[in-house]
Amino acid sequence: MGGDHAPKVVIQGAARAYKNDHQLRFIFFGDEVKIARYVKTASLPDAVYTVHHAPDAIASDTRPSVALRQGKQSSMHLAIQSVRDQRADGIVSGGNTGALMVLAKHILKTLPGIARPAITGFIPTPTTDTVLLDLGANIECSPRHLFEFALMGEAFCRITMGKTNPSIAILNVGSEDTKGHETLRQAAASIRDSDLNDQFIGFIESNHVIEGKADVVVTDGFTGNVMLKAIEGTGRFFSGEIRAAFSQSWSGKLVAPLALLALRPMRQRLDPNAHNGGMLVGLNGVVIKSHGGSNAKGFAAAIRVAANVIRSGINERITEHMHDLSMEAA
Amino acid sequence: MGGDHAPKVVIQGAARAYKNDHQLRFIFFGDEVKIARYVKTASLPDAVYTVHHAPDAIASDTRPSVALRQGKQSSMHLAIQSVRDQRADGIVSGGNTGALMVLAKHILKTLPGIARPAITGFIPTPTTDTVLLDLGANIECSPRHLFEFALMGEAFCRITMGKTNPSIAILNVGSEDTKGHETLRQAAASIRDSDLNDQFIGFIESNHVIEGKADVVVTDGFTGNVMLKAIEGTGRFFSGEIRAAFSQSWSGKLVAPLALLALRPMRQRLDPNAHNGGMLVGLNGVVIKSHGGSNAKGFAAAIRVAANVIRSGINERITEHMHDLSMEAA
Repeated sequence: MGGDHAPKVVIQGAARAYKNDHQLRFIFFGDEVKIARYVKTASLPDAVYTVHHAPDAIASDTRPSVALRQGKQSSMHLAIQSVRDQRADGIVSGGNTGALMVLAKHILKTLPGIARPAITGFIPTPTTDTVLLDLGANIECSPRHLFEFALMGEAFCRITMGKTNPSIAILNVGSEDTKGHETLRQAAASIRDSDLNDQFIGFIESNHVIEGKADVVVTDGFTGNVMLKAIEGTGRFFSGEIRAAFSQSWSGKLVAPLALLALRPMRQRLDPNAHNGGMLVGLNGVVIKSHGGSNAKGFAAAIRVAANVIRSGINERITEHMHDLSMEAA
Repeated sequence: MGGDHAPKVVIQGAARAYKNDHQLRFIFFGDEVKIARYVKTASLPDAVYTVHHAPDAIASDTRPSVALRQGKQSSMHLAIQSVRDQRADGIVSGGNTGALMVLAKHILKTLPGIARPAITGFIPTPTTDTVLLDLGANIECSPRHLFEFALMGEAFCRITMGKTNPSIAILNVGSEDTKGHETLRQAAASIRDSDLNDQFIGFIESNHVIEGKADVVVTDGFTGNVMLKAIEGTGRFFSGEIRAAFSQSWSGKLVAPLALLALRPMRQRLDPNAHNGGMLVGLNGVVIKSHGGSNAKGFAAAIRVAANVIRSGINERITEHMHDLSMEAA
């Protein structure tokens, strides 16, 4: 029931994802009347989904602490419980990110050795996508937390993007070792002392992140959130300016159809729906966040991310990694 | 001597600024041989400039502490001294920002009541520019520092953009009062307790900054630097994609001349050279930073900012404001 166009895009997204992957099975949590309306028109065989009625839904502006106390019969709460009870292998939600994190942490708990789950996401770059975390779950972070993010982000990148040995960097205001907070320098030292050292390229500035100079970029949730929204805001600003250019001037109007055709590959590549599906990594269960404004294509992309990380056993891999690191430290 | 194309763009920028403002007078600090080469071809009357030879120049990658110890005969050091000694009313530099801040703080000292000078800059928005500070001088900030930034940013915006009662906001990950660090909440409380209260609109997210929802946005130097570079990086990414779109596809090539004509107003508006000239506010003297990559047009814009703030007596106004606030507190 979460996101701007739920449950419509959720169900249409599921149908779209199913078309490319017949092994998928769905449980839809939410208002059964509304769900029934959309499954009828979506081309989704009856055998591949069930509906679990949820009388409540958590609003996008509900505070996480309120959602935790009052949202027991919400679609989000019930869906997360189904993961805990192993009736589902993972959850995909377009709802309130803060509530999703707090409910998931409460119901699923964190993986052994992980203190703080983090929100991951994709940043489009000229070459491919870059994994950025944390995008807002942890406002203040210790060096240990940032180190955990590096480890989890690396696993997420490896699995969702198929990269072997993805490069890892820490977001900073300069690339020199002396830059930034002491916390960042300590986090860098921890990564250098671990078996991630060979993949670690040190500090990176935000403009170089957008140039695609690292596969995984680690930062605290405050900075990550500011950076992500700055990129999204600048992107929307440019898109608006381009649209205006081709609808206002005489030269723009004249060439608009062909100009927009020429710009289509760029618009497709930068379409947020193509980069949809961030993982709340570090939880004892797979929780994927879809952008609240995504369409069916975007929701299908988030479902694909969920299927990838479930099949790859991402959480077992993170847990093993943590175990190896404890062994090293011992 | 600072920036990518010095002293050429500096001298050409001065000539350009002089053309629109015949009251300007210049002292060029730097390599006198190189300066002589460019003043000859720039249309700048002999009577409006003098040259002060500086045997050294601070490189863009010199660490500020090194610049402070070793750069005594550098163009930057000598130029800042001329402001201290009242031979110049202000300095405009395209050089190493960190060195400029450290040298200026050492030579000029801060204004009474100001603990930390900050770097201000302009962010382009759909309507007008927004003043953002700090852009990187202070990696960690107390509530008091952020409060000082609000006060100085307000004065800078009022003077450079001619806005009466500009609106002020604090950058955060959400607009609700409960969001972000404790430091931000305390800074907000300080602003609400001051006579800036009527202009204070609370917390703002980075995407809303880009939408132009506040005239002055306050943040610590770490976050401000990450945000500024994210906007610049995304802008460059989009520009590159647009250029590629009109040089690669058949439809793009066909309409390229008219399409680029239609996009020209946007490119002009987003041209970083049009938004050039950040002030290092809080110093006992006017110090303006030009972007290192700016052209003559950009450098002229930075000179215009310098002339504006000098004529308006910005530092006297900040000092009076600080004095009033101390009176209130007493």
